[in-house]
Amino acid sequence: MTAADMFRSRLGLRWPLVQAPMAGVQGAALAIAASRAGALGSLPSAQFALPALREEAGALAAALRADRLPWALNFFAHRAPAVDAAREARWRAALAPFHAEAGIDVAAVPAGAGRMPFDAAAAEVVEALRPPVVSFHFGLPEPALLGRVKALGCLVMSSATTVDEARWLAARGCDAIIAQGLEAGGHRGHFLDDDLTRQAGTFALLPQVVRAVALPVLAAGGIADAAGVRAAMALGAAGVQVGSAFLLCPQATTTELHRTALRSPRAAHTALTNLITGRPARGIVNRLMRELGPMSDAPPAFPLATAAIAPLRAWAEARGADDFSPLWCGQHPPRFDGVPAGEVVQALGAGFDG
Amino acid sequence: MTAADMFRSRLGLRWPLVQAPMAGVQGAALAIAASRAGALGSLPSAQFALPALREEAGALAAALRADRLPWALNFFAHRAPAVDAAREARWRAALAPFHAEAGIDVAAVPAGAGRMPFDAAAAEVVEALRPPVVSFHFGLPEPALLGRVKALGCLVMSSATTVDEARWLAARGCDAIIAQGLEAGGHRGHFLDDDLTRQAGTFALLPQVVRAVALPVLAAGGIADAAGVRAAMALGAAGVQVGSAFLLCPQATTTELHRTALRSPRAAHTALTNLITGRPARGIVNRLMRELGPMSDAPPAFPLATAAIAPLRAWAEARGADDFSPLWCGQHPPRFDGVPAGEVVQALGAGFDG
Repeated sequence: MTAADMFRSRLGLRWPLVQAPMAGVQGAALAIAASRAGALGSLPSAQFALPALREEAGALAAALRADRLPWALNFFAHRAPAVDAAREARWRAALAPFHAEAGIDVAAVPAGAGRMPFDAAAAEVVEALRPPVVSFHFGLPEPALLGRVKALGCLVMSSATTVDEARWLAARGCDAIIAQGLEAGGHRGHFLDDDLTRQAGTFALLPQVVRAVALPVLAAGGIADAAGVRAAMALGAAGVQVGSAFLLCPQATTTELHRTALRSPRAAHTALTNLITGRPARGIVNRLMRELGPMSDAPPAFPLATAAIAPLRAWAEARGADDFSPLWCGQHPPRFDGVPAGEVVQALGAGFDG
Repeated sequence: MTAADMFRSRLGLRWPLVQAPMAGVQGAALAIAASRAGALGSLPSAQFALPALREEAGALAAALRADRLPWALNFFAHRAPAVDAAREARWRAALAPFHAEAGIDVAAVPAGAGRMPFDAAAAEVVEALRPPVVSFHFGLPEPALLGRVKALGCLVMSSATTVDEARWLAARGCDAIIAQGLEAGGHRGHFLDDDLTRQAGTFALLPQVVRAVALPVLAAGGIADAAGVRAAMALGAAGVQVGSAFLLCPQATTTELHRTALRSPRAAHTALTNLITGRPARGIVNRLMRELGPMSDAPPAFPLATAAIAPLRAWAEARGADDFSPLWCGQHPPRFDGVPAGEVVQALGAGFDG
């Protein structure tokens, strides 16, 4: 039995295909559609406060349980940073011209908040709902928290951007590794080293991770269609995780501004930027990235950059501009536009069938 | 007939596999061995002054003509820059602590020199030898020079690092495009835009180039074995160009210092650096890259950075240190060590045969 067959059959999947969790552009609806079509639908849980998480994850569980279909809750495993007044001041100074242009009183904007890490309250939600899969980004939560998830029998996955990270995850009880190539959209999953030069493209990273760990390895980054699935499987993947291909599905909550950018020639130029959240993430280049980065020393630690950006984003979006919006997208923009997620799953799934 | 078959049969190749030209680590011997085994051997011609080019290219032609085997001459198509005294002074200032440490009188080191672009004298060599293939890096030479090559019936190839570059090359008479993914070792081939964020991994770049141009597209970057060949072909490549896999062949002239680095755990960390020549190239991280870069505003235009680095390299290498040496390598280090080039070709070729 191949690693792909093991991964697929353990979860009862038609194909070893994970719909990537994408905070900000999807809720349960996309995950439900993906799981119903034979993939593993994922809910990006870090985007929710606790009541909303209970509601959205509960809806996902309720929709799929009756048909015994698998699903995943995804959490961020960073350590929440304390607000550093000096760094926050530096960040607000860098943004001051934009705040002035928008007439925003930044003194009224509290620092802090942003994406929450997996914590005891989130573990209680997991214990209540018992998702078949729990996936993490930015490493793994502390051992006691991870132990609570493992004790439920959930299959645990996390992203590796280097061979060292894959080995680290394997040694700490991960059941499957997502090898996240540099092509991937959204946040880079690195957690051992923030030197971006260490991160490789899928073509180089995937086979080296497959050789380094005795676990199923899912390929992520640059996979946009059945041909991409075939290529990943040729390189030894046990399956694939695909995100950007779903961004233009009707079940995604991608804003119209974001959809417009994804459909435009601008989608050909993505870059890693730490300006939106404080951590590098790949998105279509916009005004903020052009004028301050795309990478910069100014933002505070993830996710604290978000607070001072949020009112700028709201101001610009109200005027039809994506100047300060996260336009996450991988280096292979979506090839499906307006196609329901179930059909995207089937189109990708054809890559597993020969 | 597929694009792969067309490329292969036009050239009389056993497999649509190009041994990548690698200046500094090979001469005719590696190309001869690759072509004899069924690939397209390439001579990195930009590394030679004219008399040496005539000799080495002549030896390549002579070795393969009798057996009617194909071969390629590769040239750089940059425009030679004038020495800019201010930039040269800034560069020497950045290197001053190293020159002092080595006791090098940098005033005695002339500026200038380095890799030469394809010019009228090189065109005469091409006219005399009529190579089946002429490949370029950094775009294409000016139309009159390119016309001389095209008039001979040589198949002309060049590298594209973006879809825009692929379209540009196709519009100017290129017969095949090398889609150079970000994983590739050595110099990036970009020529339309020096914004490195525009450059994508092979997984994303290759299929987008295949869709954009009606020419055979060869995949380069991250391909290290038969599985890599299969993956590239799944993504629509007409063939592949492979470099790093040959670095440890006995026919390569890779230095022992470079071979030692390639065999070590250090090979897991490559980065793009412009410190060695003035243009970004991927190599194993060494002291120079750690202390001044890896990317820096200090170096003058390609290839002028080389002059002030050369005596540092010689000094360090004489002491057994690779601190200032180009340790070019892709993000997928060589999997064959001490294996003759013909056997590496056969191992890669198996990826085309199923």
